[in-house]
Parts: sequence; C-alpha cells; structure tokens
Amino acid sequence: MSMNTFGHLFRVTTWGESHGPALGATVDGCPPGIPVTADGIQQWLNKRKPGQSKHTTQRKEADEVEILSGVFEGVSTGTPIQLMIRNTDQRSRDYGDIIEKFRPGHADITYWQKYGVRDYRGGGRSSARETAARVAAGGVARSALGHLLPDVRITGYMVQMGELEIDRSRFDWDAIGRNDFWCPDPVAAEEFADHLDWLRKDDHNSVGAVIECVARGLPVGLGAPVYGKLDTDLAAAMMSINAVKGVEIGEGMNAARLTGRSNADEISMGPDGPVYSSNHSGGILGGISTGQDVVVRFAVKPTSSILSERRTITKSGEDTTIVTKGRHDPCVGIRAVPVGEAMMACVVLDHFLLHRGQVGGAGGVIG
Amino acid sequence: MSMNTFGHLFRVTTWGESHGPALGATVDGCPPGIPVTADGIQQWLNKRKPGQSKHTTQRKEADEVEILSGVFEGVSTGTPIQLMIRNTDQRSRDYGDIIEKFRPGHADITYWQKYGVRDYRGGGRSSARETAARVAAGGVARSALGHLLPDVRITGYMVQMGELEIDRSRFDWDAIGRNDFWCPDPVAAEEFADHLDWLRKDDHNSVGAVIECVARGLPVGLGAPVYGKLDTDLAAAMMSINAVKGVEIGEGMNAARLTGRSNADEISMGPDGPVYSSNHSGGILGGISTGQDVVVRFAVKPTSSILSERRTITKSGEDTTIVTKGRHDPCVGIRAVPVGEAMMACVVLDHFLLHRGQVGGAGGVIG
Amino acid sequence: MSMNTFGHLFRVTTWGESHGPALGATVDGCPPGIPVTADGIQQWLNKRKPGQSKHTTQRKEADEVEILSGVFEGVSTGTPIQLMIRNTDQRSRDYGDIIEKFRPGHADITYWQKYGVRDYRGGGRSSARETAARVAAGGVARSALGHLLPDVRITGYMVQMGELEIDRSRFDWDAIGRNDFWCPDPVAAEEFADHLDWLRKDDHNSVGAVIECVARGLPVGLGAPVYGKLDTDLAAAMMSINAVKGVEIGEGMNAARLTGRSNADEISMGPDGPVYSSNHSGGILGGISTGQDVVVRFAVKPTSSILSERRTITKSGEDTTIVTKGRHDPCVGIRAVPVGEAMMACVVLDHFLLHRGQVGGAGGVIG
Amino acid sequence: MSMNTFGHLFRVTTWGESHGPALGATVDGCPPGIPVTADGIQQWLNKRKPGQSKHTTQRKEADEVEILSGVFEGVSTGTPIQLMIRNTDQRSRDYGDIIEKFRPGHADITYWQKYGVRDYRGGGRSSARETAARVAAGGVARSALGHLLPDVRITGYMVQMGELEIDRSRFDWDAIGRNDFWCPDPVAAEEFADHLDWLRKDDHNSVGAVIECVARGLPVGLGAPVYGKLDTDLAAAMMSINAVKGVEIGEGMNAARLTGRSNADEISMGPDGPVYSSNHSGGILGGISTGQDVVVRFAVKPTSSILSERRTITKSGEDTTIVTKGRHDPCVGIRAVPVGEAMMACVVLDHFLLHRGQVGGAGGVIG
Repeated sequence: MSMNTFGHLFRVTTWGESHGPALGATVDGCPPGIPVTADGIQQWLNKRKPGQSKHTTQRKEADEVEILSGVFEGVSTGTPIQLMIRNTDQRSRDYGDIIEKFRPGHADITYWQKYGVRDYRGGGRSSARETAARVAAGGVARSALGHLLPDVRITGYMVQMGELEIDRSRFDWDAIGRNDFWCPDPVAAEEFADHLDWLRKDDHNSVGAVIECVARGLPVGLGAPVYGKLDTDLAAAMMSINAVKGVEIGEGMNAARLTGRSNADEISMGPDGPVYSSNHSGGILGGISTGQDVVVRFAVKPTSSILSERRTITKSGEDTTIVTKGRHDPCVGIRAVPVGEAMMACVVLDHFLLHRGQVGGAGGVIG
Repeated sequence: MSMNTFGHLFRVTTWGESHGPALGATVDGCPPGIPVTADGIQQWLNKRKPGQSKHTTQRKEADEVEILSGVFEGVSTGTPIQLMIRNTDQRSRDYGDIIEKFRPGHADITYWQKYGVRDYRGGGRSSARETAARVAAGGVARSALGHLLPDVRITGYMVQMGELEIDRSRFDWDAIGRNDFWCPDPVAAEEFADHLDWLRKDDHNSVGAVIECVARGLPVGLGAPVYGKLDTDLAAAMMSINAVKGVEIGEGMNAARLTGRSNADEISMGPDGPVYSSNHSGGILGGISTGQDVVVRFAVKPTSSILSERRTITKSGEDTTIVTKGRHDPCVGIRAVPVGEAMMACVVLDHFLLHRGQVGGAGGVIG
Repeated sequence: MSMNTFGHLFRVTTWGESHGPALGATVDGCPPGIPVTADGIQQWLNKRKPGQSKHTTQRKEADEVEILSGVFEGVSTGTPIQLMIRNTDQRSRDYGDIIEKFRPGHADITYWQKYGVRDYRGGGRSSARETAARVAAGGVARSALGHLLPDVRITGYMVQMGELEIDRSRFDWDAIGRNDFWCPDPVAAEEFADHLDWLRKDDHNSVGAVIECVARGLPVGLGAPVYGKLDTDLAAAMMSINAVKGVEIGEGMNAARLTGRSNADEISMGPDGPVYSSNHSGGILGGISTGQDVVVRFAVKPTSSILSERRTITKSGEDTTIVTKGRHDPCVGIRAVPVGEAMMACVVLDHFLLHRGQVGGAGGVIG
Repeated sequence: MSMNTFGHLFRVTTWGESHGPALGATVDGCPPGIPVTADGIQQWLNKRKPGQSKHTTQRKEADEVEILSGVFEGVSTGTPIQLMIRNTDQRSRDYGDIIEKFRPGHADITYWQKYGVRDYRGGGRSSARETAARVAAGGVARSALGHLLPDVRITGYMVQMGELEIDRSRFDWDAIGRNDFWCPDPVAAEEFADHLDWLRKDDHNSVGAVIECVARGLPVGLGAPVYGKLDTDLAAAMMSINAVKGVEIGEGMNAARLTGRSNADEISMGPDGPVYSSNHSGGILGGISTGQDVVVRFAVKPTSSILSERRTITKSGEDTTIVTKGRHDPCVGIRAVPVGEAMMACVVLDHFLLHRGQVGGAGGVIG
C-alpha cells in the first residue's frame, strides 16, 4: 500500500473527490480474459449507493460506472482498467461554515495542517464517497474470482450497531439481503431500524457499527509471510476505509481472553483433507489461509457530521461552534458493508495471483 | 508491505529462521548521519530477549546484534544497514514429533500446504524469533527519530492478560519498566504474575494479552491518505506480528458502541495550536496525525504450544494427538511489547520521511 | 516501475488504449500547492500532438486534457491528479487485415500470445498514443519543478535521423523550437526534412532517430544508489517509451572506446563549488547527480507500419503478407521528443522528493 | 527498483561496502523447492572473483558465500534467502589521500555531497564489490530457471574493448569460456590481451568495453507493459551496474540508422509456431518476449582509478592532483560479464513469475 494504490499484483489506484467532476479507480494487473461489464460492476455499486433507504444519506448519486480502458469485447485485456464514476449531485450550495471551521472528528483539520490546501467541498478526498471507487474495483476482482476460483463467496454483514448485537443463533445467510442493514439476524435488523430512527430524528445523533466479512471456499495457501500475510493485508485494507478504527481476524481482540487450550483449532483428517474442530483462527495461520472461512471484522465509528452543536475552531484560530447540516449517514456502517466486501475481494484475488506467481501449482500434499 | 519487506522510504526486510545459523534485518532508506551502534540497538533487543524471567521461554539467546554494513564511524551512511543476530541456542534435539505432526494453532500446516517444503525446526520462519529482527530495525528507527524528532516517545505496555485488565486510574508510566509484564498498573502486574504462574505450572496452559503502544510528541501531518494512512500502516505493522489477531486505533472496536456526539473530539484553540477535549480518535483523523498521542492496541492470542494434549494429524494424513514440549512462552504478549514499539517506531519514522518528501516544510497554519 | 505505474514518490499510472473512449494518467504523490491547470498541461501536449506538420501522422487528435481530481482552485491538493484525454478521431474503419494478421515489428503478436486477447484497434495499449498520458503527467512534474527547483530546465531535441546527424558546432538552443524536428542544428533540420519527404512519398518507408534530453540547473545529490540510481531510473523511463531500443547517459555506448585518462572529468574549485573540466559522465556519478547537465540519449526505431509489403502470418497460422495503411508517423522520433522530456521531468521530480525525504536539507559541504 | 532492492516478485536487496565486514544479498520471493547450495552459487561467484588473471585487479577475495536463511535440506523454502560474503582482503592501509581528495570520475564526491558522510574505504557502497552480491543472487535465479524453464540459457560475453571489436563471423559459443575476456572471438581475445597489457603496464591507463548478454530458449510472453516491460527492466538492471553508461536491446542505438523496411523482422509459420526472418528487435516486441533470443548490450566505462595524475579538489575546497594507486581493474568490463548475466537471470525469472501470477497458463494460440 502506497498512498493511493493498494495491492501487489492486482493493484488498485483510486482517485477523486466528493464534489469534483468524477472519481474512479485504475485497476492494474487484472488477469486477461475476465468478463468485465459496466452492468456487472453496477450491481455492487448499487449496494453501496446513497439514498436507497431512509437510513442512509439522502444525497442522490447515480453512481454509474464507465469503463474507459482495459476491456475489449466484454473481457479484460490484461491492461489497466479505468473505472470512472461521474459526480452528479454536487448540490450547488454555500459551504461557508465548513470553509472556515473544522468539523470535530473529521479530517478537515489534518488535511489542512498537512497540505496547506484543502478541498473543503464535502470532505474532498477524505469523503466516504471515495469508497465508491473501491466498490467498482471490487466488482472487477469479484468477476476475476468467479472465473479463477469459482467456489469463493465473499459476504459482508452488520453484526453490531451501537450497543445492539446480533444473536448468532439466529444467523441466516439469506436474511442478509432482505433488510436495510445487511443484517443476518432479522430480529436484530428490526431493532437496528428502530434505534436508528430514534437517533436520527429525535437525538440528532449518529452511531457506530461492526461489520463482518467472510470469504468462503478459499483455497489453502494464500498469504505471503511475513509482511504480506493475508491477515496483514486484510487489516490494512479494512483500516484504510473511512471511519474504521479496529480490525479483527477470527477471535480478534477476544483472543486475549482465551487460553491456548481453548483457542487452538484441533485438526482431524476428513475425506478431502484436514478438517478443523473450530475456527478461532479466522481461517488464517501464520498469515496463510487454511481453507476454512476467512473471517474479518471491523468497527466503523459514528459519523461526526451531526446536527448537534459541537465546539471547534476556525482557520484563523478562533474558538467557535459548529452544527453540520447536510445529508449525512446516521450510521455509515451500513454502506461500509459492500466496501468491506470489495476490499476483501481485491485482497483475496491479489493473494491468489501472488501465490500463483511464486509457487505455481506446487504445494505440500497431506495424506 | 510486500512479502518480507515493510515500509515506503524507511524499508525493513527481515530474514532468517528460528533454528538457522542467523537472522536479521536489512534496513534501507535510513537517513544519513544518524548515530547507530550495536550497543544502542542492543538495549532494545534486551527488552525482548528470552529467558529473562520465569514468565517467558527459557530458551537462552544472547541476541547479540552485529552491524555488517551501512554504518561508518558510528553513524549511518544512507546505505543499507545489515543487522545480523546469530542463533546460538539451537539446542540439538529430536524434532521427531514435529516433523511429522502439525501443531494445532501453528503455521506448520499452512507452510507445508503452501510451499511443499518446511523448516520444521522451531517453527522456522513462522517462529516468533523473527521478531528479534524487527526489534533491531526498530532500534535504528528510534535512533533516527531521536535525531529528527527528539520530542517523540514511543512506549508499549500490557493492558490485559486473559480476563485481567489494568485499572486506568492506576496508570503510571514509571511502573512500566518495573515489572515483568511492562504493565503500567502495579497492582495488575501482580495479578498477571500470579495468574501466569498458575497457568504455566498447574494448568499447563497459555493465555492471550492486549498490548497498547503510544507515540507521544508526534508532529501533525504524518500519514498518506488513503491507502498509506498512518493508521493503515500501523494496523498492518501490528497484524504482521506473530499471533496478533486484532488491532485498534483510539477507541478501536469500542467505536461501534459510541454515538457521534460522544465520539467526536471537540477542538479549542490553545497557546500552541489546536487543543482537543479528548482523544477518541487515537491521534489520527483521515489517516493523518493530529499531534495528539497516537494510540494503537493489539491482541495477542495464547501460545498454541502447550503441554496439554491436542488432536491433530500427520503429514501422511493420519489422526493423532500431540503434546508440544519445549521452551515456550506461556504468554507471548509479554515479549510482544518491545516488538510493537519497534514496529511503531519504524512506521512513524517512515511516515515522517514520506511527509518530508512529498510536502517538505509546507503545511497549513492555524491562527 | 511496476506494470503501468512508474516512480517512487511521484508516481504516475497511465491507462487507456489507442481507440478506446479515453486515455490518461493518474498522478499520485504530487506535492501540494503546485499550480496545475489544463492550459498549463496543454502546452506540452500540443508539442506532441499529431497532425501538426506533414512529417507526422495525419491523425487528428485534439488531445485536450481534463483534470478530474487532485486540483482545487488551481493548485494541487496533494491527492491523486487524474488527467483524462478523450480519443476523438477514432476513425470508424475496417480493421479487417489487422484483426487476423500480425504486423511485423509490432506488439500485435506478443500481446496476443501473452494475453490471449488483444485490442487490435490501432495497436490498443501498445500504441504510441499511450505517450500522450506521459506528456500530461510530465506537465504536472514540470509545474512542480518550476515551483520547487526553479533553475531546472529540461529540453529534448533530435540529434540524428537515419544516417544524418547534427553538427554540434552549430548547436543552437533557440533553433530547437523553430523547426518540425526539434533540431538544434538548423542546417540538419533542413536535411532531415528533405530526407523524410523522400522516404515518406517516394520510398514508402520510415526511419529511426536519436533524441537527446538535457536537464540543466539540477542540484547535486539526486539519485538513490544502487538500484534507484538517477541514471537507472532515466534508462528505465526512456526504454519504456514505445520503439526505444537504446539509452545512453553522457558518453553512452561510446564510453567503451575511451580510456580512463580521457574519460574522467577533472575537478577544480570554482566560486560556487566544484567545476568539472568536461562532462563525459553526463552529470551523474555513482547514480547521483553532480550538478552538471544531466544528459540522456535514446534511439527510436523506425515505424514498422509502412506502405511496403512485408511477410507475416495470420492468427490461424497461415503465411501471408501485409501492407499497413493508415496514418502513421514516418519518423516517430519527432514526437518522441516531448515524451522524453516528460519522462525526464517525472524522474527528476521524483528523485528530488526521494532525496528530500531521506536526506532532508543535510549533505556534505565542500570548502 | 527502489533504492537497494530490485525486482517485482523475485526481489533482491543487496547490502554491504567494499571494506566493511561483509556484503550480501537478501533474495525474497524465490519459488520453493529450488535446489540452492553454496557450491552451486560459488561457481558463478568464481567467474567474477578478482585476481584470477593478470587482466583484473590483484585484490584477493575468496568471495565465499554463506547461506544464512531460506534454504532447508538443500532446497529453497519460499522464505528470504540471505547470502553473505565476508570481505577478507581489506588490506590495512593508509587511505589518507582518498579521505581528503575526490577521485575524478568516481562517486566519491557525489556520495559526500548527497549524504554528508562517506565510507571512503575502497569506494564504500559505490565499489564494484557490490556486484558480488548480484552474482550470488543471480546464482539463485539461475537455479530456479533451471528448475522452471530448463531450456533457458543465459550467456554474457565481451564484444568490444576500446576500439577493438569482435568479428561476428568468428563467433563461437565455446570460445567464451576459454579466454580471460569471455570473448566469443578467439582472435579478438588475443588482441584484447595485447592491448590491455600495453595499457596497464606502459600507458598506466584503463579502457572501456561492451558486454552482450543473450537469453536463449525463453518462452513467449514475458514482460509487463508498459512500465514493467522486459526491455525496461533489463535496461534498468544493466544501467544499475557500476560504470555502465549505455544499454541496448537488439539493434540498440543503431536502430536510429535503419528504415522500417530493413528493421521489421518478417514472420512466417514454422513447425512449432512463428519464425522470424531476423532479430532486429532483440527478442522483444512491445515489451514482451517473442521467443527469439533476447539480446541486451551495455557499455562499461574505463576505470577512473588509474596511475596517471589527474586534477581534482579536496574536501576543504582546494585544487590539487591525485594519482590513484591500489589494485584496480584496467578493464572492469571483464568482470562485468558475470554481473550482466546475473542481472539478466534475475530479470527473466522475475518476469516469468510475474507472468505466471497475472496470466497463469493462458495465452493466445497461433495456428
């Protein structure tokens, strides 16, 4: 990861600001012959698109992707794929307050102090709008995975909002797409909805969330120890998403509470190879995939842009207060779900290519 | 991060196995004119060295570093610094069990399945011994920071072991160096000691831990959005350490529980610039340092190498059991403290150089 | 350099095909506060633009650049700058011959054999049209250099076409912009014109050329030994340009003919520091700039697309012949001049940032 | 290429100074299961070793390589391979003159001006001794190529010394190993010997050379356009070698003299695929290997360290003169032959891995 590029062989460079003419992703290193179409990518962008329910920002963005290069007659050519999304709803308005004042909890102040120049319109480059480009790139990665590793399925969902958590005994993969929260527990989904309604309308507040992403059907052997481990790259990928403050693999922070006896996943021999008695490891040992589900979780902080008044300062150094109006997500965690999935798809594909490059078809056989 | 190298401008490549002749780090991109001596690096290696208390592995390693290049007349020349540590206590013994059996919770099985060849002696490359090289590289980074950013202080400590947590009201920076656990709460340190004694001697078990690392005195502006964010690189750096399963910045996973009103750190103008009412952000906004303390936490899983019998399989695919004898840490979290510090020092220095490269002395003034 | 990205800190990723909707460059790592405007970049694109004289391809391309990101109120923000150029003259025509036949001397056959899919329209990604993106990125680099190193001047010119070479005794910097060949020798420029007229009209042929690029006013100390040397990166930059087959620094291949006594540039002390009696080294010693003019030369092969019949094969493996019609440059070397300048500007800026990052203001004083 | 590391997937980081305790190479990304032994690497180091004939420096270095990591039971494990070579003949002597004076044509002055500190002993990091590490790394690359691409043969040889060139009609592959110059023309080899004797003994001078390296038996499809082209990486690899001032692929600088009709290699269909009528391209089209011999040439400048007096300055800025005594190569081109081969082996292997990573087994079929 280097500035605005991530990945080793499947390399994604994103560009663009919230209120500039466009944003996008340059996807380099895609294998050739992969079906890539605007429609195919659009389905993933639509999952993240704002304005789809009352629980997300009311900004209207078509988020229509244009493929400008790297695809010929419907398949990738192996050359860079440029994915561009025009910004359409850059509502012409008075940015007055934000020009001079720094929003607490935002990158406004650090961008200013670092660069000495700042695109204040809607957060500029630090806006969550940047994640649309990630989702577009993830769409290409998913298509390549579908071609190269057809058993792989990557699914994200919300497991916690504020103090409310899902009940894992009610976990239902099919429920995920049926509510506004990508929540696998339909009961929790209703609780989330009620809570968010109250927060948004009555409390003028926002709330954090925890998202879990799972990759099922992964082959054994992905990950390049010791600084390009699969978990290292997943951690970096998730932590690079706006508002993310924590990342966990498998047991995550809870691993600290466990003992060696309870934490180690015991192994036995199954008909198709090793079988594990549990998955505390989150599908990764020593940075390399075990073939179990790879499980990553990340916490998204509550949106700082709220209608409540907060103390801050101006560029000229005066104390003041600010109320952030505008169209903001009361829980950005919702729209972080497809973003997390996209990042996971990119990381998994990248590591598949890396592994194929270094090791080829070899590898150790058991049994 | 790419395989065995991490960093953008200050780049560290580590090499070596647990029971090979030596291990080390190649440090490239160090600024010239930095005082670098074996003694200076040794002080940090001694913090991590095994066999220093009954709470860590009884393997005896001098962990003496030799500087093979890049230093002339006591200062760095700007060329690669090779730091080599000879393995001295490679106890000649029968590896029989481990050659054929995979230890549950270890990288034994994934290394074998990925590469088809595996240095089984003591975990080979996946051993925690690799972290000695990180600490040595961190010693160089610390020296450079002392030269370039003399106000920066990087300190790690243990805040949790198993279910036992420190009481933040008893936090004492000076206590950290006075107990075997790098624990800032002297009362908790004693509890940790008692608990670990029991686990090791009576329960033949091991336990996880949470380590917190803080960088104080950092300048504003470090971090390269959006994929080279300071928090992204810290997350990757910590997740790349053996046995780490979760990483948090500031509020970390707890951010999911907070509301926008409670989470945003309010800003006021102080005599020397902006002052924050709190530090939920962990000193990073939009991936860029705010000038507050940068706070990162990571969870270390319990050692899988325990004296209790566990089910596993052999290379030939037969079900069996294993008891891992040998000299293992009942809580690897203890020795992870100097490793976390070292990684943080490398990341901070790297971002200082990156920032100086791209932005130079410029940046926005407030007031 | 990695696939479609070059540079260390100032990183340029180009994308796009000859006959796709657009092509462009993503410029990452540009220092903030640099004046960047479409007009400013356009002046360099206009130097390279086709159809400006009878000596270049008659394809008409406006080559108008749009800035889609990274610039706010006329200056760079430090975030990625997306430069897009729409392809306008994608003449709808019958590609029939080229679809099935491989043009000798072209990348047609290798793209097909490598990727199994190929955008045959106008050479796709392997077309010299890709270099427009380099020139646009170079425009940004030049603006940054103008800001950070105002004494630097980067100038390219043609010194040889076929067997015709310039006479160095007639070298005139001011002549360069006054002829169709960017030739510093006005007499040679006329010879070039006559020769090219004959080749194109009568001989239905094309011809190679040698381009020289000079960076004047460079500071001492740019270059990162040993694999990021200034000359290494210049060699890579120039060799990556379409049709380039050789690169020289200073004496270049002629260095083989010299003796140590004649080749070493003697040093004496001048009023402002070291003065060299000659510049056989081309301004670089040990990979680091000396402060003298940095001189790089590269040879451009003759266009393979000519009206003469050549033997080749079809995709189905049959022997056949081909005559390449279409609008091709009889001497692509002409339009390679601004491309070489652009690459040099990018490399020089990148190394300035790298040097500032690692070394800062330090460095050894003489006298 | 970034500072002291080169390669994309097969990454080599070299370290060490001429007169430090040791130098070496960290080889990351080597495929697992490759036979790697000290003896196997030693055969290549012995080709480069000084003091083997009267035509090279009389410095005696055993150049014995130690493998410190990454190899287990005789094969690579997929983890970093550390290759260390102890410096043994660091003749204790008075460096007085070189400490204060800058040798013309050397990196002495630029290292000092860039870094403000300089290991003056034998050129420090800028010494040609660094190339021993490249040759060691190349030995690993050759072993991997022997395993993965057994048909590939990489051979370097001298084709020019000063004004003397070989006669291609006398080219004999078997002659290369039979003379002190790795010269394929036995008659030229004798002329080289006579000329160098005179230069060294009577003229107290040195001379440049041209080395050609050829990779035979390469598969089609290696090279990653447009900034990781096979020729781009070869050019960078060769230009990064000490004293190299020019690099050519195929026709090289001579391509400027040719016409499109004479330069394009015509294609016909042979029993095993495309056959080319000639190899002006040097086996690379559009940055991708054609399957023909890949031909690269580079010019090595004459050693600047000669017994003749040259004008220079001191660190304190005074004009003076210098005579460089010591044990220097009158023609460093001789020992550059195995270095060029090693760099080519690394680049070819790296591109094979890159190609396998991105494209796998796919690719377009002809016929």
